[in-house]
Amino acid sequence: MSQQAVVLVSGGLDSATTLAIAISQGYSCYALSFDYGQRHRCELEAAKKVVQQTGVIEHKILHLDLVGITGSALTDPSVAVPHQPTEGIPVTYVPARNTVFLSLALGWAEVLRAFNIFIGVNAVDYSGYPDCRPDFIDAFEKMANLATKLGVEEHAFKIKTPLIKMSKAGIIQRGVSLGVDYGLTVSCYDPDADGRACGVCDSCRLRAVGFKEAGVDDPTRYQ
Amino acid sequence: MSQQAVVLVSGGLDSATTLAIAISQGYSCYALSFDYGQRHRCELEAAKKVVQQTGVIEHKILHLDLVGITGSALTDPSVAVPHQPTEGIPVTYVPARNTVFLSLALGWAEVLRAFNIFIGVNAVDYSGYPDCRPDFIDAFEKMANLATKLGVEEHAFKIKTPLIKMSKAGIIQRGVSLGVDYGLTVSCYDPDADGRACGVCDSCRLRAVGFKEAGVDDPTRYQ
Repeated sequence: MSQQAVVLVSGGLDSATTLAIAISQGYSCYALSFDYGQRHRCELEAAKKVVQQTGVIEHKILHLDLVGITGSALTDPSVAVPHQPTEGIPVTYVPARNTVFLSLALGWAEVLRAFNIFIGVNAVDYSGYPDCRPDFIDAFEKMANLATKLGVEEHAFKIKTPLIKMSKAGIIQRGVSLGVDYGLTVSCYDPDADGRACGVCDSCRLRAVGFKEAGVDDPTRYQ
Repeated sequence: MSQQAVVLVSGGLDSATTLAIAISQGYSCYALSFDYGQRHRCELEAAKKVVQQTGVIEHKILHLDLVGITGSALTDPSVAVPHQPTEGIPVTYVPARNTVFLSLALGWAEVLRAFNIFIGVNAVDYSGYPDCRPDFIDAFEKMANLATKLGVEEHAFKIKTPLIKMSKAGIIQRGVSLGVDYGLTVSCYDPDADGRACGVCDSCRLRAVGFKEAGVDDPTRYQ
């Protein structure tokens, strides 16, 4: 039997690539997405399409009331998404988001006895969120193996971050080689109702430069 | 201004005592409870009463779809709650529960700039859950300060566990001295529809012995 993995799938470029990498490495994948009140809700539709195209054993979309406890430009309609680069950790940061996502992935992984949890964080061409860095991932993995029955008994859980040291261009080239259809993905922090990208937010900029540097035609639908 | 704290309040004996301790230490408290499909739902009603009696700035009850991803005697009606002590980690263990709860508390705490998160875990008279031990709490705190903007910038978050080394009797004596009304609390894993305790599950046994050893009349309503 192949090894099982839980893969966090947001509908963006990075997580679509991560899922393709996990599958290419022979893992039987369970995809997990969150409906957490994100303003870019077309990401969830993108997540469904990515998962359908790639093929997983199960895709779970978990409703999570993050809006009630966090204020962020990604969940709070009263906070504007910046259209220029900003210093430090940006307002699009959602407090403890990856910690919450990984914690719920850990719970499902323990039930499934899936010892591998894939997350498409990247610490090179990224927005500067603290919960995308290797130090955070290492600390989470250590905590996870103290927090859980399987972790304690078998020291089993691994947090897999295949993209963490890759450039955006490198991620895109890898994804293209694995057949990822980036036309299905949505990365924009502030898309319109039809899921078309703004082209000016931090995430759009990183994505556009990535396609250019990768020498790959950008399939993004812009407003 | 007094320091702010987020306090996890389940409606059980331990968290009621933890909240009373946090308040006695001068913290301005925000209480957080979870509606996660627990079969002992009267705990949530107990949490409301405990919080009302004690006094907090805000009490948030967050809906969390844990049932969909975890199988446990505490959430899965098809798994029986054991009425005898069992070896090892019991079936009432909910995968990654305290990790998920603390992660969401962390998100709220960051928004509030509340640098203290109180959780009533106990590693003496407890059910053997891995996520109640000091090693887990230390690892979570370390992770939290790598995961968050405030953690990285100010290395600020503390996970406070005032009960962790106390006996159940000691917890009860402390709570009584602080005016906690344990008649409001529900600890049973398998209460009836009126919130009356079974008297035979692991949690009931620990609680009953605690009152006896504390020399305090047990106000628990039994079936």
